[in-house]
Amino acid sequence: MSQIAKAASIGGGVIGGGWVARFLLAGIDVNVYDPHPQAQRLISEVIANAEYAYTMLTSAPLPKRGVLTFCTSLEEAVQDVDWIQESVPERLDLKRSVLAQIDVAADPKALVGSSTSGLMATDLQKDMKRPERMFVAHPFNPVYLLPLVELVGGKQTARAALEDAKARLVTIGMTGLIISKEIDAFVADRLMEALWREALWLIKDDICDTETLDNVIRYSFGLRWAQMGLFETYRVAGGEAGMRDYLSKYGPCLQWPWTKLTNVVDLDTDLVDKVASQSDAQSGQRGIRQLEKIRDQNLVGIMQALKVGDEGRGWGAGKLLADFEARLWRIASKTQMATGDQTLRLLDLKVPAAWIDYNGHMTEYRYTQCFADATEALFQQIGVDMNYVNGGHSYYTVESHIRLLAEAKLGDALYVKAQLLPSDGKTIHSFMSLYRTSDNTLLSTYESMMLHVSSKEKRAVPPLPEIIGKLKPLIEGHSALPVPDAAGRSVGMKPARA
Amino acid sequence: MSQIAKAASIGGGVIGGGWVARFLLAGIDVNVYDPHPQAQRLISEVIANAEYAYTMLTSAPLPKRGVLTFCTSLEEAVQDVDWIQESVPERLDLKRSVLAQIDVAADPKALVGSSTSGLMATDLQKDMKRPERMFVAHPFNPVYLLPLVELVGGKQTARAALEDAKARLVTIGMTGLIISKEIDAFVADRLMEALWREALWLIKDDICDTETLDNVIRYSFGLRWAQMGLFETYRVAGGEAGMRDYLSKYGPCLQWPWTKLTNVVDLDTDLVDKVASQSDAQSGQRGIRQLEKIRDQNLVGIMQALKVGDEGRGWGAGKLLADFEARLWRIASKTQMATGDQTLRLLDLKVPAAWIDYNGHMTEYRYTQCFADATEALFQQIGVDMNYVNGGHSYYTVESHIRLLAEAKLGDALYVKAQLLPSDGKTIHSFMSLYRTSDNTLLSTYESMMLHVSSKEKRAVPPLPEIIGKLKPLIEGHSALPVPDAAGRSVGMKPARA
Repeated sequence: MSQIAKAASIGGGVIGGGWVARFLLAGIDVNVYDPHPQAQRLISEVIANAEYAYTMLTSAPLPKRGVLTFCTSLEEAVQDVDWIQESVPERLDLKRSVLAQIDVAADPKALVGSSTSGLMATDLQKDMKRPERMFVAHPFNPVYLLPLVELVGGKQTARAALEDAKARLVTIGMTGLIISKEIDAFVADRLMEALWREALWLIKDDICDTETLDNVIRYSFGLRWAQMGLFETYRVAGGEAGMRDYLSKYGPCLQWPWTKLTNVVDLDTDLVDKVASQSDAQSGQRGIRQLEKIRDQNLVGIMQALKVGDEGRGWGAGKLLADFEARLWRIASKTQMATGDQTLRLLDLKVPAAWIDYNGHMTEYRYTQCFADATEALFQQIGVDMNYVNGGHSYYTVESHIRLLAEAKLGDALYVKAQLLPSDGKTIHSFMSLYRTSDNTLLSTYESMMLHVSSKEKRAVPPLPEIIGKLKPLIEGHSALPVPDAAGRSVGMKPARA
Repeated sequence: MSQIAKAASIGGGVIGGGWVARFLLAGIDVNVYDPHPQAQRLISEVIANAEYAYTMLTSAPLPKRGVLTFCTSLEEAVQDVDWIQESVPERLDLKRSVLAQIDVAADPKALVGSSTSGLMATDLQKDMKRPERMFVAHPFNPVYLLPLVELVGGKQTARAALEDAKARLVTIGMTGLIISKEIDAFVADRLMEALWREALWLIKDDICDTETLDNVIRYSFGLRWAQMGLFETYRVAGGEAGMRDYLSKYGPCLQWPWTKLTNVVDLDTDLVDKVASQSDAQSGQRGIRQLEKIRDQNLVGIMQALKVGDEGRGWGAGKLLADFEARLWRIASKTQMATGDQTLRLLDLKVPAAWIDYNGHMTEYRYTQCFADATEALFQQIGVDMNYVNGGHSYYTVESHIRLLAEAKLGDALYVKAQLLPSDGKTIHSFMSLYRTSDNTLLSTYESMMLHVSSKEKRAVPPLPEIIGKLKPLIEGHSALPVPDAAGRSVGMKPARA
């Protein structure tokens, strides 16, 4: 299976730092080289943001974080790595010379990606001796959340290098789309540029201000494009008559006067002043850090919403997230099988924005979600996964009792410990406790009874032997643990605070 | 307060039908006129989709659905209505004559909006005697979910009419953005057109196929634009250096070769064939109805995710949803106060896609969410709203016991009944039951204990008198009801199935 064993990032700005965070969170060691005097501080800030957002995005088990090494030279940074990502400023001469330096110093087989948002690989790779392993790998800010990498080869790039890069990107939660033909700015920036040009005309001509324009996008087509893109959106709009009919109906509009503004707007001082002051009026009451946080929390929320799209199968960027999580679970179930002689630590997560109520605390039902996710983690460990469920078997929760003992706030790190009470495995009787990681405060307890059922026969049946084989040692290992005081309680009994 | 007393829709296609659904769901009676022989069937389909999606979008109490009347003439349809929406096909001559007919037959004070996506109000209103009340009100498909209406006046439109329209749109869950200056295609279609033109070039030149292009959008900038639009996204990307710095840095790119394709693509037979066949390969395995459903469920999920953005205050389209729900609650609390002599019916909703697990059933913690939302509805009825919470008081759930008795599936209509058990109001001891609406099957029961606290003093205190004044009659009214068998149970007691 394709993997990245160790990576190097040449350049540690917002984009380079985003790559570094992606690698580290996927468990990959990273060397960084950036001569900027503030590089260590800047990159640490990006990583902190990334880790904060990422642990809100998923509660799937992340591997042990990779080791970050700041290097004092490019040559040192690229030693013994198999993926080198160049993210230096957007100047052809600079990038070309940096890539040539990388080429000489690196393992001949290491892949070399450039984060350029518009320059062509053909031009970038000209001074390289091994240009066949070099390609554009264009990510999107924030790199630690947005999954897309445009992969574009130059004239000398080997197709195999692009395919290899695509396969490896999956392992860090990203997706590489290979762009068939090389052009300036590739696909995404080409599209963004077209809209940006039109937007500047609208501002220049006083048709609307920047805030109205942004609201127009995010109250209408932005919501459509986030999940279906352009062509599929139009296909749906076209209805049963089909795409061909739609095109013949709306194609002529292209020739209407709507498109008269195809010349390039002059971004002179006046227009810069206008855009900047309108943007201040629109967004200036919030600082950039605050806007970044809101952006990241929204992205997390949107991707989580899309993760359950298409009736739970995942849709668009949410499908990518679901696939990545399934991958993380597969890896974790191989490496993290519990020993069975103590309570299980089943979940580590941070409280995301979507879980907060108007009191500023984690909403009641999100406590239940923590325990449900922890139960899911337990299932993964004993082999009750999608394949098992698709095979017609599953555990259903029959009832549960939850006590809410202390509050959790936005961004709090939490974990769940689980104890399995005696049962035959046809039922699972579990008692779980939710803790705040920073001070091990007990936030909540949860007792539940689950029943193993055949979804075809619609009745309770014993689990398959391979499940019992994994479950039994856990239950037996826990049999020596004392039964928690709070187990067997009913609502309204005198509260026990711990 | 501005309202729409009764509306008329001239045209009952996808757009006209979407307007009709918006009006009806907001409790407004609607007259429809559409000479198309299939109009009744088509419009009923749109309304069914709308109702399905809308009840997934919000569990706030919708008013009693308006009455729909199909009229046999335009003149009949516009009688005694105060908002007329024209949604006939996109031809200037046709729209102009229809608007002139509306003008003659309608109340002189009724507002007249046109759904045109690009024609100018100035041209549309030329034959009207009272053109001052006519404007473009351009909505977005699906009209029943996307909140935006571009409001654009013509030369003869009164500014007051635009302001009035904007105020009234709020009452049907939409938001009107007044576009300052009139141009063809306004703002949204101007922007979409620019990107669409570029996209067609990319397909024509074989840079990528339609599926890759759509994925590029929805894995990257689509996710950004859905929540922040264009200028705020760039502002954040620019970082602390500010918008001015960002523009000076990236402005020059506008003059780079990226923008060379500013001429208009010829959508000839070859290109139509190419786009249509690529689109078939990309999306053809799913029918249009299925894609519509997926689209609507994703839009619901995204807007719900954004509703809790900005730490619960709501962001973008989610903020609009939150504001609309607050409005619905205010109206409902005035009209639907329970009598107190029987159990309370607190919640009516449909199970949205995001609530389904891989078994195809509603996930465990969403049962808890139903009860949490029902508790929220109870709070609204007794005056525990945002103002009360901001004043420093609130109820916190201390513990709860839930039994899951039967499954709920995607799209199932559900409701909650609540019984308040004896208590002094400083604690609320409630027992709730979740039912499937279609057959009144009991799906789940939930017993909870809540404590009234002062968030400043961080301790339990009695509620303020106005709360007790509303709560006490409810508790007393319920005191004659039998205590449910399942109250006081603990986990693992012999299950009672009803």
